[in-house]
Amino acid sequence: MSDTLTLPYTAREAKPPSKRIPVAVLGATGSVGQRFVQLLEAHPWFKLHEVVASERSAGKSYGEAADWRLDTVMPNDAAALPVKNLGADLDSLLVFSSLDSSVAGEAEDDYANRGCVVVSNSRNHRMDPDVPLLIPEINADHIAAIERQRKRRGGRGAIITNPNCSVVGLAMAIAPIERLYGIEQLHVTTMQAISGAGYAGVASYAILDNVIPYIGGGEEQKIESEPRKILGRWENDRFVDAPFRISAQVNRVPTIDGHLMTISLGVRNRNSINVDQVREAIDNFRGEPQNMRLPSAPKKPLHYVAGDDRPQPRLDRDREGGMSVSIGRLRPCAILDLRMVALVHNTIRGAAGAAILNAELLEAKGLLA
Amino acid sequence: MSDTLTLPYTAREAKPPSKRIPVAVLGATGSVGQRFVQLLEAHPWFKLHEVVASERSAGKSYGEAADWRLDTVMPNDAAALPVKNLGADLDSLLVFSSLDSSVAGEAEDDYANRGCVVVSNSRNHRMDPDVPLLIPEINADHIAAIERQRKRRGGRGAIITNPNCSVVGLAMAIAPIERLYGIEQLHVTTMQAISGAGYAGVASYAILDNVIPYIGGGEEQKIESEPRKILGRWENDRFVDAPFRISAQVNRVPTIDGHLMTISLGVRNRNSINVDQVREAIDNFRGEPQNMRLPSAPKKPLHYVAGDDRPQPRLDRDREGGMSVSIGRLRPCAILDLRMVALVHNTIRGAAGAAILNAELLEAKGLLA
Amino acid sequence: MSDTLTLPYTAREAKPPSKRIPVAVLGATGSVGQRFVQLLEAHPWFKLHEVVASERSAGKSYGEAADWRLDTVMPNDAAALPVKNLGADLDSLLVFSSLDSSVAGEAEDDYANRGCVVVSNSRNHRMDPDVPLLIPEINADHIAAIERQRKRRGGRGAIITNPNCSVVGLAMAIAPIERLYGIEQLHVTTMQAISGAGYAGVASYAILDNVIPYIGGGEEQKIESEPRKILGRWENDRFVDAPFRISAQVNRVPTIDGHLMTISLGVRNRNSINVDQVREAIDNFRGEPQNMRLPSAPKKPLHYVAGDDRPQPRLDRDREGGMSVSIGRLRPCAILDLRMVALVHNTIRGAAGAAILNAELLEAKGLLA
Amino acid sequence: MSDTLTLPYTAREAKPPSKRIPVAVLGATGSVGQRFVQLLEAHPWFKLHEVVASERSAGKSYGEAADWRLDTVMPNDAAALPVKNLGADLDSLLVFSSLDSSVAGEAEDDYANRGCVVVSNSRNHRMDPDVPLLIPEINADHIAAIERQRKRRGGRGAIITNPNCSVVGLAMAIAPIERLYGIEQLHVTTMQAISGAGYAGVASYAILDNVIPYIGGGEEQKIESEPRKILGRWENDRFVDAPFRISAQVNRVPTIDGHLMTISLGVRNRNSINVDQVREAIDNFRGEPQNMRLPSAPKKPLHYVAGDDRPQPRLDRDREGGMSVSIGRLRPCAILDLRMVALVHNTIRGAAGAAILNAELLEAKGLLA
Repeated sequence: MSDTLTLPYTAREAKPPSKRIPVAVLGATGSVGQRFVQLLEAHPWFKLHEVVASERSAGKSYGEAADWRLDTVMPNDAAALPVKNLGADLDSLLVFSSLDSSVAGEAEDDYANRGCVVVSNSRNHRMDPDVPLLIPEINADHIAAIERQRKRRGGRGAIITNPNCSVVGLAMAIAPIERLYGIEQLHVTTMQAISGAGYAGVASYAILDNVIPYIGGGEEQKIESEPRKILGRWENDRFVDAPFRISAQVNRVPTIDGHLMTISLGVRNRNSINVDQVREAIDNFRGEPQNMRLPSAPKKPLHYVAGDDRPQPRLDRDREGGMSVSIGRLRPCAILDLRMVALVHNTIRGAAGAAILNAELLEAKGLLA
Repeated sequence: MSDTLTLPYTAREAKPPSKRIPVAVLGATGSVGQRFVQLLEAHPWFKLHEVVASERSAGKSYGEAADWRLDTVMPNDAAALPVKNLGADLDSLLVFSSLDSSVAGEAEDDYANRGCVVVSNSRNHRMDPDVPLLIPEINADHIAAIERQRKRRGGRGAIITNPNCSVVGLAMAIAPIERLYGIEQLHVTTMQAISGAGYAGVASYAILDNVIPYIGGGEEQKIESEPRKILGRWENDRFVDAPFRISAQVNRVPTIDGHLMTISLGVRNRNSINVDQVREAIDNFRGEPQNMRLPSAPKKPLHYVAGDDRPQPRLDRDREGGMSVSIGRLRPCAILDLRMVALVHNTIRGAAGAAILNAELLEAKGLLA
Repeated sequence: MSDTLTLPYTAREAKPPSKRIPVAVLGATGSVGQRFVQLLEAHPWFKLHEVVASERSAGKSYGEAADWRLDTVMPNDAAALPVKNLGADLDSLLVFSSLDSSVAGEAEDDYANRGCVVVSNSRNHRMDPDVPLLIPEINADHIAAIERQRKRRGGRGAIITNPNCSVVGLAMAIAPIERLYGIEQLHVTTMQAISGAGYAGVASYAILDNVIPYIGGGEEQKIESEPRKILGRWENDRFVDAPFRISAQVNRVPTIDGHLMTISLGVRNRNSINVDQVREAIDNFRGEPQNMRLPSAPKKPLHYVAGDDRPQPRLDRDREGGMSVSIGRLRPCAILDLRMVALVHNTIRGAAGAAILNAELLEAKGLLA
Repeated sequence: MSDTLTLPYTAREAKPPSKRIPVAVLGATGSVGQRFVQLLEAHPWFKLHEVVASERSAGKSYGEAADWRLDTVMPNDAAALPVKNLGADLDSLLVFSSLDSSVAGEAEDDYANRGCVVVSNSRNHRMDPDVPLLIPEINADHIAAIERQRKRRGGRGAIITNPNCSVVGLAMAIAPIERLYGIEQLHVTTMQAISGAGYAGVASYAILDNVIPYIGGGEEQKIESEPRKILGRWENDRFVDAPFRISAQVNRVPTIDGHLMTISLGVRNRNSINVDQVREAIDNFRGEPQNMRLPSAPKKPLHYVAGDDRPQPRLDRDREGGMSVSIGRLRPCAILDLRMVALVHNTIRGAAGAAILNAELLEAKGLLA
């Protein structure tokens, strides 16, 4: 057993595509959609070619249709693109989706059945039995499920998903510990930023000088189930969940970006526990994106932040462009084995950035050919 | 076993004192000290007679010395009082203390040894073997320890303490469950308001758009130890801790007042668990302050707040003048037995209001005679 | 010329009605509508009898229809009321309106033409030539316009309005100065709380760690025009505006309640200016609501708050139940004559409370008979 | 008269120094001091060589002494530097100062008299009769005053200052208008971020859900006087103030960074006013830093931001690395001639970045030789 997580692939640096691959974004005017547009502006491999939104935006340019809310300027090329209707034929093979879950289920299936590779941030298909729920540092081998999916669809179309924003932080934070000792149970309480609810999702009157101990859409259920698939195995053409149990309690707090969470966990192999070894495994944690030097891969997926009072959302969320998860306060638990605090940038590593990294993995593995 | 918590005293309404009892406040210029002054203004039993602060304030009136920060006007009578030096002789038998822990230990002992009944919000003597750590709804019988303390001091002086602000919320929230099923273990994550750190305790630059996953002064240790004394027993002239274990993770969040906490707990008597029974026990929870109708006693010490997303600090902290603890989201835990959310007004029920209720109990029990 | 503002009525205390007058609230589920319901709960003269809302709420009880957001509990009596559709026949003569401006214009006219006395917080009819725009401390005599209005409508129905939330603060703050010296010009910059936009009006993602230098709905235009009508005269059956000019710049800031504003003004009678005299006139300012001891009248409509750094929204907005305007930092201006800071509780004195005070004036003057 | 501001120097691109110039930072552990350290890390011309702080930090490394609060990692090279005592001999000719005003006056004079070129952000010497108060886009020619100062000091030492953080935004915003029409009078209300008060300057309990209509240290006086020196002339060996008058009212608001201000102004040449011309002049505004392509110079010192509701602190403060001032809502005033909203990043363009740009100008002009 190694104290760093290196996946069993032959390390080889990915070859960039010969020219930038044209991509479409579904739900491009929403808050995650805007992040896609922002992150794709200077992307070395992908080029924004099509934007798709609901009928309300039909006939407008993206510049007219999108109520741009990010703190960088809307890319000129994007602004000039005509907005296509959801359902319209697309030129692009690679399609990013940040559709609302009320429409994502059907629309993504539809495009996948038409032959598109849909890299989705929506929750609808995450738990499907042949859809990978990817964090490439952890389970890059789960892309093997695409083969089965393609058989079902009868073409090269497929859906690949990334986890819920909190789950990305949680699963990455515990991955080194799972590999070292095997996790048995885990209590997590999240303190989630308002941007996780989309631009208009949380009224200021609801959250100023306040905390809301609830997030709709089954947030706690997602946190309790998705990590088990992510840290599980793909074998014999099906996913086998990791065997641990999770209890999640979620809260909305008045921060802009960055989901912070306290974690308390018990392991199966209790006798081996060594806090220093865990800290080292966190800092040395690497995976396929680092091995292949994918463009959006952080150098260090996990940063152990020293200091009694870290990580903190405002100070630590932007490490490595928001693609790293920060961890701190690793210490024994008064009941279980370990306690820690983890932080993930919810709209970058927890949403659009995660999907883009997934697409990079697909390209590097030759699955967009 | 009853599903409501009624303590084994004969219920009898307390007789008010014949005239308002003069009291002193130690540390009167600080943030909790100001709350004492505010809450005592219209108190039916007690009358602010002396204010004591550090040498910096010597020779000034309270109006000059205190940088008043509350959203009510400073009482005129208080403003006119001369500030006495810490250590000065006091006329008052009853002395409230909100001294900083750097000086509280010695100063409170000193006044108690001189014959004062010191009702303290400071942490220094909370765990002393003959000092009651009171939440009168839970452990009013612990005041019996005063007898042993008075023997030691050789007079009528004594120290009585209230718990840490978060502990008040936690201990009250779990008290009905402890009585129903016996608690075995408990995970708690707090989201604490900035007022808990005193007026200048948290810089705005530190906390705006941020969460700090740490609170100094041994906050987690207090939360892990104080509830065991509070829910324990005084027998054979000593305190016997309740047998459960607590794991606490604390956070500072950008709210003004109100400590919110998520709780997950396991009980000893797992087979009997019934969520409806617990909810009812919470709503019916009463104790000695209610039996005796103490002036600061809330009608209902615990409010079960319906609604998926409650309690919330801004909406629920002021129930019954800030003297009630609000509870919500009671539901089974995915790992242990029960999960819930609790909220306490940290500077009222969690500090000055708690101490005043303690003093009312002492008076009602004849211990200020 | 007096340095206090006392209106030329014979002071006489109003006689309470023999029993509580039944009233209706239009737009009762919205944020100002909820304030009406809250403030009417314990009102000595009025009793909530009917609640009216849009069709979405039809057939529900108020408890089901309203997403209650205030920090007090929804009154039980209100919760049980059936919600009537806008346009339905009403039993009540007195009707409060907090309708959205998209529907208020027509609906209020309709009810007034049917014989109701509509006391409105909406902006639609404020500048109508026979509709009083009342701040009873300033222009109680403007209710004379109702006579002309009733002639037009051919019955006892009428519309009475209160000003925009910021205007209430501004007009009250300058009223004593207008009376003393005559105002010539005035620059005002507002910093307005989020509650002014209604519950969902300002997204948290828009305002956290931010200021928005704009408020829609013609906010600046209202501030520049309404005070001239309020401080003007009703004579010869028409309103004559006060002759001063106002330049307003408005901002939304991340506060919950309380509109703060900086004011710089020049007067016509510059030679007489005396800052002490102004401060005294502010503190002594009284009007008809005080003379008649109306139930919602603050004892002092204006509070001059000492201290270089006051008034402040969180510390001063709740003076006299939110019905007083706080003023501070009165000092000479480097360009014009006087500078000052004013604060008004925007949803109480600036909205529901203002309307209720207006209705009390009508009752006291015998206009609800 | 031109509608763009180009200063009367021959445009020539500055030649970089042959190697990075060693510099010292006085007050290096404070909040502006940390910004100096951050901005100097990758500076092409300057290299941090010495850090100076109060005695409390003596004997420590910078990494030990500084409580680092920025959202980037402390530079390793800086962390290793030993902290020197204020007053110690320095190797560096170029010295940045962010000393507290309680000590800056004497200390800066002392170092200048010893031959250092002190580029200061402190307020003490700004209004001295031979000390330039520089915004290089506006008054780069004021550096001529150094000659007189050097005569007085008898060496090559000198003090050069940048304005108060709000003044930088105000002076830059009005500079094109001053050149076009001549300003006569100006009302400004600021809404200033908490970082302007230093790390611990504003308690969170003071500012959450609040606005404070006051800033100490003579903030309003600085805003009313400094722009007149900046936009004035250096002629006949002395500064001649620009003739306009300013009335300032300042407020602290709960934003992290970015001072926003509303401006209303009257001009001398009223007949020529054309809002489109002003907008164009703002967008075309350039100065010596752009002509010489100084490393920290923004491409556009002023950005006119379209949209009714802009600029906004969180969305616009970081334009061009925080070195540009954003302007919006340009429109006629109801009383004077023009109204507008301006925004400056107070700790970058308004403090450390301003000083570094000043030092670059000195180097480019050969004044560090």
